[in-house]
Amino acid sequence: MQRRGLLLILSSPSGAGKSTLAKRLMAWDPSLRFSVSATTRAPRPGEVDGREYYFKSRAEFAELVATGQMLEHAEVFGNFYGSPRAPVEAAMREGRDTLFDIDWQGGQQIRNSALGRDVVSVFVLPPSIAELDRRLRGRAQDSDEVIAGRMAKSRDEISHWAEYDYVLVNDDLDRTFEDLLTVLKAERMRRDRQPHLAEFVRGLNGEFEAR
Amino acid sequence: MQRRGLLLILSSPSGAGKSTLAKRLMAWDPSLRFSVSATTRAPRPGEVDGREYYFKSRAEFAELVATGQMLEHAEVFGNFYGSPRAPVEAAMREGRDTLFDIDWQGGQQIRNSALGRDVVSVFVLPPSIAELDRRLRGRAQDSDEVIAGRMAKSRDEISHWAEYDYVLVNDDLDRTFEDLLTVLKAERMRRDRQPHLAEFVRGLNGEFEAR
Repeated sequence: MQRRGLLLILSSPSGAGKSTLAKRLMAWDPSLRFSVSATTRAPRPGEVDGREYYFKSRAEFAELVATGQMLEHAEVFGNFYGSPRAPVEAAMREGRDTLFDIDWQGGQQIRNSALGRDVVSVFVLPPSIAELDRRLRGRAQDSDEVIAGRMAKSRDEISHWAEYDYVLVNDDLDRTFEDLLTVLKAERMRRDRQPHLAEFVRGLNGEFEAR
Repeated sequence: MQRRGLLLILSSPSGAGKSTLAKRLMAWDPSLRFSVSATTRAPRPGEVDGREYYFKSRAEFAELVATGQMLEHAEVFGNFYGSPRAPVEAAMREGRDTLFDIDWQGGQQIRNSALGRDVVSVFVLPPSIAELDRRLRGRAQDSDEVIAGRMAKSRDEISHWAEYDYVLVNDDLDRTFEDLLTVLKAERMRRDRQPHLAEFVRGLNGEFEAR
């Protein structure tokens, strides 16, 4: 019997490094599956359907929710976002872990779902709000109004930090990535994620019997 | 506010590498406190009171138990063993972690005590019983009968593997030590072991307010 796949949920305010950490983690472990979200927001230049997001109309999205095909969903700035259920369940059956780059609303829904016991949730805090602001402005393509909206969303996001299993303060990206790896490696060693060990121990008992 | 000290319980059958792992861990992190057990068994040559064990008479041991000074205790091969409570509580107050090299009976009692939520328990399995036997005989100072008794105790110990949070199969000591380190590092990053983060987040909120 193979190991049981876990659901690694990574949340943070925009600009705290979450997406960079997620990309590094995917590069580090090709067996990880990244959960591509569905959204009703319009694609930005360069975004590819099925890579950054699955782009859906509001009617299509509502249909996915109504037919139970979304593991979680939430509305942010007037657009819907959600995690398709089927790929997650397929990964778990294969003993593969799934990485979610989602906000606190999504995290809360998955944690409270039937898959809650398979969740490992990690919140990434920025070292300071000044640094968060600097990183958000660094993207340079957005108006002050858009940035102010993001900062309000960031504050809302941060207010949910205490709902997560692990909390990392990202004051050094390399160190924070090492910490994230450490969490994933340790969680994979949990006894309840290694059902194959029951068979191994039966083998040890067989050795005792045969003596 | 400092971090909250945890109780790292390491259990395994005799000969699976537990004591070597414990020694390496103590050398790796001088802030760790090793819980020296009290016992009623006689000292072996070279053993020093307060280093390997606190050597107690049966009357003294019974008094320690009766006055609530033992965190856990159990009888093994006619001798009593137990973990003194005061040094553990002192370490926790200082935000230091305590390492326990104890058997499943002790592990169960601490897990079920008021300190249960501070426990991280790790069980180390041998790669095979043949290997366990080889390591036990390697000590060379014991009779076949003593070894047979130890093997029976080992089988009893292994039967409790599924009560532990983490399970490591020690087929390579260096790798198993790395795994143990990974578990300790990750557990230290759990949100509920970092109460100081609440103050850090209040600081972030203060920054939002000041904008």
